Amino acid sequence: MHIKECIVSAPGKAILHGEHAVVHGKMALAVSLNLRTYLQLQATFTSKVCINLPNINAFLSWDVTVLNQLVPDSEADLRNMDELDIELVRRLRDFVGIPNGALDTRSMAILAFLYIYISIFAGSGELPSLTVSVWSELPTGAGLGSSSAYSVCLAAALLSASGTIPSPLSDQENTARWGVAEMELINRFAFQGERIIHGNPSGVDNAVGTWGGILRYHSGKITPLSRVPMLRILLTNTKVPRSTKVLVAGVKDKMNKGPKVIGQWTQKLFHGQFPSIINPVLDSVDAISCTCEQTLSEMTSDSPTPEHYDILEELIDINQHHLNVMGVGHPALDNLCRVTLARGLHSKLTGAGGGGCAITLLRPETEHSVVQNTVQDLRECGYDCWETRIGAAGVQEHSPLAVKEEVLEVLARY
Amino acid sequence: MHIKECIVSAPGKAILHGEHAVVHGKMALAVSLNLRTYLQLQATFTSKVCINLPNINAFLSWDVTVLNQLVPDSEADLRNMDELDIELVRRLRDFVGIPNGALDTRSMAILAFLYIYISIFAGSGELPSLTVSVWSELPTGAGLGSSSAYSVCLAAALLSASGTIPSPLSDQENTARWGVAEMELINRFAFQGERIIHGNPSGVDNAVGTWGGILRYHSGKITPLSRVPMLRILLTNTKVPRSTKVLVAGVKDKMNKGPKVIGQWTQKLFHGQFPSIINPVLDSVDAISCTCEQTLSEMTSDSPTPEHYDILEELIDINQHHLNVMGVGHPALDNLCRVTLARGLHSKLTGAGGGGCAITLLRPETEHSVVQNTVQDLRECGYDCWETRIGAAGVQEHSPLAVKEEVLEVLARY
Repeated sequence: MHIKECIVSAPGKAILHGEHAVVHGKMALAVSLNLRTYLQLQATFTSKVCINLPNINAFLSWDVTVLNQLVPDSEADLRNMDELDIELVRRLRDFVGIPNGALDTRSMAILAFLYIYISIFAGSGELPSLTVSVWSELPTGAGLGSSSAYSVCLAAALLSASGTIPSPLSDQENTARWGVAEMELINRFAFQGERIIHGNPSGVDNAVGTWGGILRYHSGKITPLSRVPMLRILLTNTKVPRSTKVLVAGVKDKMNKGPKVIGQWTQKLFHGQFPSIINPVLDSVDAISCTCEQTLSEMTSDSPTPEHYDILEELIDINQHHLNVMGVGHPALDNLCRVTLARGLHSKLTGAGGGGCAITLLRPETEHSVVQNTVQDLRECGYDCWETRIGAAGVQEHSPLAVKEEVLEVLARY
Repeated sequence: MHIKECIVSAPGKAILHGEHAVVHGKMALAVSLNLRTYLQLQATFTSKVCINLPNINAFLSWDVTVLNQLVPDSEADLRNMDELDIELVRRLRDFVGIPNGALDTRSMAILAFLYIYISIFAGSGELPSLTVSVWSELPTGAGLGSSSAYSVCLAAALLSASGTIPSPLSDQENTARWGVAEMELINRFAFQGERIIHGNPSGVDNAVGTWGGILRYHSGKITPLSRVPMLRILLTNTKVPRSTKVLVAGVKDKMNKGPKVIGQWTQKLFHGQFPSIINPVLDSVDAISCTCEQTLSEMTSDSPTPEHYDILEELIDINQHHLNVMGVGHPALDNLCRVTLARGLHSKLTGAGGGGCAITLLRPETEHSVVQNTVQDLRECGYDCWETRIGAAGVQEHSPLAVKEEVLEVLARY
């Protein structure tokens, strides 16, 4: 069959406010990160399906004829987008040779690709020969939506290649977005990929990858904010994995306190031993998210003022204290906040915490030298650090002219 | 007239939980500090009234005959302990030569002494000749109740000297406390001293000085907890005065943000611009005070366990985060918390914050070497640091045998 070639990209995601509180029924604000995942889909005549994922060193190819045998007899289960076709997932695991229970990034990425590929082309009679190459600016496994950006790119490129959705590119535009109906379809297929990778995802990450901008998430309901300002940030990865926290706590305990494990203790406190202390903190986080949403809205209807940024900074500081109260802080995050505050910049952790990543707000008037010095300070602490923006566009198609040279170079290698 | 000589002492005070929140109608826990103020009252035959306050380098004496002229014709106003005899205060200011509006420690201490002395002896026909010498282990002006300990000592010693209250000492006891009725009287006279020194005090400080232990303070009502455990703490004075905070904020602003003054901003936020964010934090502080009170109560009815100390530490950590949210933290306090946590110890600011003092909880099993090393670390930061206890006894009378040698030595110099 004839398929359409394309290059697509989707943004990563961060939580601006409401991580953890969202689990307790409070509102969260999820934002797109202009660190993007790029996917190039090429038609081939090799009767092979190839996937190249240089970020995780995964390069595989299969004969189309072999893959054809995996297509379900009935497409009924594939058309039911409310859940996965478990039987197909099982067959794909066996086919690729993924041991039961294995959840590693490489296995999950391959499984998600094959599932979306087969889902989209199963109805077209024969599976097409093609090569998919993916390159991401996002670190993997850092809670920055690298998997959802990947799933969104897969869904958009494969739906486009199959002709299910048209190309949004016109002669005038080298980068363009799809219409609402097409994006909804992309989002639904991307969610299937997320289900394969994460088991029971909230759907927020793929929604951010699809719609971009800023999304409000509350009690399972996802609402994109209508207009959002683009905010400059530093995104920093402390590279402290979550589990290290327990180690640190363990060490601290041994120093002073006997057998208590602080991680467990905090969990106990947080999950209900002292609800009268913690529930108000969750209420305050909720109010922070609401105030932030309102402030962002004012920044788009009027012009952004220094006072708007004052509020955004204050909200970041307060929420960082609250996250410490919830027991998801880490000395590396405290250090990061201190280092950026010494440059006049305000930071909070984003996502799970206990290490992981943080965002640092940059003001429009923050000078380039301040940004450079801060990035250098943070790198000297051993952290990864990127200057980027939040509120960036969701999934897009690009003509090769509109893709950064370095990304094209990477994609061209495969 | 014949007067009775005595040595009395009263403890300082700290706020365990609820500073700032108490202003907004929440509960606070005030605790006595076993850093004490000692007062020796000696009868003399010099027809002089002398007061020696070596801590603040104030040594004064007056002729009794001159002081007699200041005694109000009617004692009605002096017997009304609900308010000060403003006319007497005015006459005393003129007499001592305190300029209008002067509120310095030395002037206030002298005024409080003369007021309480005249109030107590005015009814006895003639003012007695005596010398009062005071030595305090408390730093002055650090929010640790040095003025209330002073007022309590003055009230207790002068009431005792006048024969209004009996000595509680017996042959068996070298240190003893008065009965409830006597302590209530001491507390009322001490409150007059506090009124002179502070204008409109809450009455908590003199109540702590009188009753000792731990007091719950809520909406103007002061309730001593019936039984309290004695807790070991480090008390640290960062020696950062409150005003420095504004300076720091100003510097930070100039670095990054234009003309905003963070101190003012935080005040604005705290006092109502975002009540939905801050009010829950005050509720959480209230719950912290309640949980602390309950835990302390359990520690006296059962034996204290490591788990009790775990809770006390957790409450300290959470409240310190909340105080930062309220904008009364300071980099010196952050540093103090970090330094003590590195030794496995938990700290929070106490009192006004924005610098000032902090308390660090010591556990029963905290080794002497850990305490010593922590004290050394804190002193190397330029802070003053004392190992002491909270929950100590309130006002007491001592025989000279029961007073520490170094205190007796200081008192004996005058």
